[in-house]
Amino acid sequence: MPTYKAPLRDMKFLINEVFDYPKHYASLKSGENATPDIVDAILTECGRFSEEVLSPLYQSGDEEGCKLENGDVSTPKGYKEAYEQYMMGGWQGLSAPEEVGGQGLPASMGLLKQEMMGTANWPFSMYPGLSLGAMNTIQLHGSDEQRQTYLVPLTEGRWAGTMCLTEPQCGTDLGQVKTRAEPQADGSYKITGTKIFISSGDHDLTENIVHIVLARLPDAPKGTKGISLFIVPKFLPNGEGGVGQRNGVTCGSLEKKMGIKASATCVMNFDDATGHLIGPENEGLNCMFTFMNTARIGTAIQGVGPAELSYQWALEYAKERRSMRALSGKKDPEQVADSLIHHADVRRMLLTQKAFAEGGRAMLYDAARLADHMVEGHLEGDEKKAEAYDDKLGFLTPILKGFLTEMGYEAANLGVQVFGGHGYIREHGMEQIVRDTKIATLYEGTTGIQALDLLGRKVMLSTQGGAVREFTLRISNWARRQVTHRKARPFAWELLKLAAQWNVLTVRLMLTARKDRDIISAAANDFMMFSGYVTMAYMWARMAVVAYDKLENGGAESEAFYRAKIATAEFYFDRLLPRAQAHATSMLSPTRNLMQLDAQDMAFTG
Amino acid sequence: MPTYKAPLRDMKFLINEVFDYPKHYASLKSGENATPDIVDAILTECGRFSEEVLSPLYQSGDEEGCKLENGDVSTPKGYKEAYEQYMMGGWQGLSAPEEVGGQGLPASMGLLKQEMMGTANWPFSMYPGLSLGAMNTIQLHGSDEQRQTYLVPLTEGRWAGTMCLTEPQCGTDLGQVKTRAEPQADGSYKITGTKIFISSGDHDLTENIVHIVLARLPDAPKGTKGISLFIVPKFLPNGEGGVGQRNGVTCGSLEKKMGIKASATCVMNFDDATGHLIGPENEGLNCMFTFMNTARIGTAIQGVGPAELSYQWALEYAKERRSMRALSGKKDPEQVADSLIHHADVRRMLLTQKAFAEGGRAMLYDAARLADHMVEGHLEGDEKKAEAYDDKLGFLTPILKGFLTEMGYEAANLGVQVFGGHGYIREHGMEQIVRDTKIATLYEGTTGIQALDLLGRKVMLSTQGGAVREFTLRISNWARRQVTHRKARPFAWELLKLAAQWNVLTVRLMLTARKDRDIISAAANDFMMFSGYVTMAYMWARMAVVAYDKLENGGAESEAFYRAKIATAEFYFDRLLPRAQAHATSMLSPTRNLMQLDAQDMAFTG
Repeated sequence: MPTYKAPLRDMKFLINEVFDYPKHYASLKSGENATPDIVDAILTECGRFSEEVLSPLYQSGDEEGCKLENGDVSTPKGYKEAYEQYMMGGWQGLSAPEEVGGQGLPASMGLLKQEMMGTANWPFSMYPGLSLGAMNTIQLHGSDEQRQTYLVPLTEGRWAGTMCLTEPQCGTDLGQVKTRAEPQADGSYKITGTKIFISSGDHDLTENIVHIVLARLPDAPKGTKGISLFIVPKFLPNGEGGVGQRNGVTCGSLEKKMGIKASATCVMNFDDATGHLIGPENEGLNCMFTFMNTARIGTAIQGVGPAELSYQWALEYAKERRSMRALSGKKDPEQVADSLIHHADVRRMLLTQKAFAEGGRAMLYDAARLADHMVEGHLEGDEKKAEAYDDKLGFLTPILKGFLTEMGYEAANLGVQVFGGHGYIREHGMEQIVRDTKIATLYEGTTGIQALDLLGRKVMLSTQGGAVREFTLRISNWARRQVTHRKARPFAWELLKLAAQWNVLTVRLMLTARKDRDIISAAANDFMMFSGYVTMAYMWARMAVVAYDKLENGGAESEAFYRAKIATAEFYFDRLLPRAQAHATSMLSPTRNLMQLDAQDMAFTG
Repeated sequence: MPTYKAPLRDMKFLINEVFDYPKHYASLKSGENATPDIVDAILTECGRFSEEVLSPLYQSGDEEGCKLENGDVSTPKGYKEAYEQYMMGGWQGLSAPEEVGGQGLPASMGLLKQEMMGTANWPFSMYPGLSLGAMNTIQLHGSDEQRQTYLVPLTEGRWAGTMCLTEPQCGTDLGQVKTRAEPQADGSYKITGTKIFISSGDHDLTENIVHIVLARLPDAPKGTKGISLFIVPKFLPNGEGGVGQRNGVTCGSLEKKMGIKASATCVMNFDDATGHLIGPENEGLNCMFTFMNTARIGTAIQGVGPAELSYQWALEYAKERRSMRALSGKKDPEQVADSLIHHADVRRMLLTQKAFAEGGRAMLYDAARLADHMVEGHLEGDEKKAEAYDDKLGFLTPILKGFLTEMGYEAANLGVQVFGGHGYIREHGMEQIVRDTKIATLYEGTTGIQALDLLGRKVMLSTQGGAVREFTLRISNWARRQVTHRKARPFAWELLKLAAQWNVLTVRLMLTARKDRDIISAAANDFMMFSGYVTMAYMWARMAVVAYDKLENGGAESEAFYRAKIATAEFYFDRLLPRAQAHATSMLSPTRNLMQLDAQDMAFTG
């Protein structure tokens, strides 16, 4: 079974050569310590940890899964030791403020870390990943006392955190939340209810677990405007940084899932558990949304990671496994057959994986710069700045989360296809990547919800198309500068056409929506996929231009690397980008073809 | 957990109203007994058996899986009893000749049976399904004695059969087969070697298992021209229809797989096992290919089945589960939220499933008529007739197997999406359909191999494009008759354009292939997918015309059914068919974008 190799060359290409992170970091307060050699050292060490510690546990964790015994959840063999190393390495606090014990580095450094660790072993990385969500919530909405009590142990990784949103009757539609919070004389609340699908709800990695819980105060307004946010720790803090009494929150059962089996997905029962309000009463959902964009970008990594991992494994196999002869003539005449890699259709699958992995990575790193500014705005208390960057990021987020996770899933499935029948057998690990990746299209809002968020909320409601105009302007401004580029010209023309088309499609949908509201939901998925393909095309064009220029200026130390970039860009524009047009055609078709059938007439069995 | 309902209304619509099976059966010798009321009774009974006996075992079989203990494989609880009922019902011999104890009905009846049983419980249906492959081989290539010895117990279902092709070093490229066959003085052979991925290789359902094995005679020519076919039974026949001594073939281990866990996938060790040659020496692969088309159509059913099953379950859920409000206004104002079915994007997913299930079913039933004629040719010894129909079927087979299984997999994944996070949880059964369906794109030749078979072999090599010309002529002849149809006119025009485009694409690829052989592999997948979308469009147009006419002529007993057909056809043409154009664009792009990179330059890790 091949193991994860951190794609450091590609990561550094993006941060140093395409997006100029050194300059970007120099513009950030939190970038002060993120000098090129520090960044380099961190990436190297993170890559090593991911390759040597996390990757070897990926398959065994799937085989073993988590166990619930006597009310306690235990993680698979080796997880505790790996987490110990993670904690000792200070990884949890990488992008956390220094005043709570973090290293104060930019948010994007945390994303690079999450990408490597998550690609090596996604289920493991969910434990610290969920904690980050809790940390962000407390950082932004907690009282000073709450920050003091919880943030230091969370940043150290001694404690972990969860987000308790979903209930049996509702996931997306959180207005239906029923969990109750009864105020107590001492200012605390008694929380009672059942939460499901709680990742890392219980486990044996940390001495305490801090639950961030959505619940309803008595007499709260119905629906989304009556939801408040509470901190409910597994053990009550003892006031000295340690833990005291056990709280009334327990894991009722573990879900049996398609994949991510090493990640504990818990049914959590709150039974008069002591909690404390966080943020204002009845504004729990707003508090959640503050960092929803960053949380969703965290999930978007799960689009890039599996594409990378599955590509690495499939590429090795395609080089080694021999079957049939290449159509253009024998390639390895002394062997019984040619390697799979010599078959064009196998290359089509491999290059699709590569194009999605590297193109998706570029989309993430591009967006991560916006996250850096947004977080800085929050930490500086400059809410206007934070909001401005949150808006920019908010437009890209559903594209990243929705499009990249679907592409990651496609890439993981192609990895199985490259292996043929062997891809279906567990020992090769390829099918595990498929099972583990499917969840990415479901949690943190399904693909359908991302699409609705993009078209309905971010494009139509909040900006009346302005978000598309702003982003396509960025694309076309860049492309216009490249139309005289000796080599990249065709990419630039294509992008100019696509940017214009994106706007036209947006306007047509907005006009239709005036009379026919259903068009928003009807067109959403196609609109998001179109947006994704075009955004990724922009990234591939940018990468190609850098590669052309490096080769042109000579002395490129890694000529083959740049040639591979250009070849993959050509592949992407020729063979994947045409799909955007199918989505364009489909999204403009009448809603009638979806809505005309009565529900009871959709099936005639018996 | 919802259970399978046999879609008898849709099946009867196709066989009676669209494809006129009664007339077709009247033209067949084997159709003598397939009168409309017999067919009706068989479908009803088969539907009942599938719903009541097989469907309830689908989920439990996945949970339990197969076990290998002391060299014997046992199937999950309830399988033995269900198989007993299957055998008692005479289902195994439905389409087998009467002289070996079968019912002598047309091959297409067997396909309808396989569809229902396979949709209810695919892993179960693989046990009798693999037997059919062995039965066909013996029927066509066995000696009289072999037929007498093996076909009667196989047809009764008392014995089962397997196909032993794959070895560790080769699956697709069977020229690499190493298993040896040493001739013995008594005319038998000693077979020694290891076969992997042997479905139903061992189990507890029957008193004997008959393996059809590919092996090499001493001094056989290298490669594909030195492979012979052998019958190797688990127990040697005792000459009285029963079993005698145990043969030297054992199950070494069971593969741990992504899905179809209730189907035993065995590593089979042959250790001086007694076998008998079947067919001529060194012509084993030709013998295999005789029925490869029918075997692959059997697998194509696994594209339609999961789409149907996942659709049935997702539709129920979408009617019951409530989340958010419909964009066009509250639909169930008295409830806390509207049903999922009122959201256009959910309908997009459901209708995609429906379009693939019903469109795929039509493609199967259309092709099954060719199979009926082909089989009749074989049984009558009219090889010219058999070959003529085999050629027609041979063109459609890779489209059915390659395209429909990919679409079935997409449909199964959409079923998970409709369920949201719940789709990922095992108890709901949706993720099982995904895991069970993935194998369909891998076995009996991967999607890539189907594509190569279609474009390289069936289109270019065997017919120089003639197969496309013939099939598109069928489409355009039909479409030309509909251009004056008051309602179906737009479908007809679209089909005429697509038929012409299909030919143009074929010619362009053939011209390119003269100079650049790689184009065949480079374009194969896009060509197959394009072919699939157009063929399915033809089916939807045909179904729509029948539905329009029934409504037009009034007195339609099931008006809602016909309206649903038309609505689904509109959906298919508007929202799924545009994908064909993305494939058309992609397939014509230069092979350079796939082939230019050296294998060692495809990744730069570290």
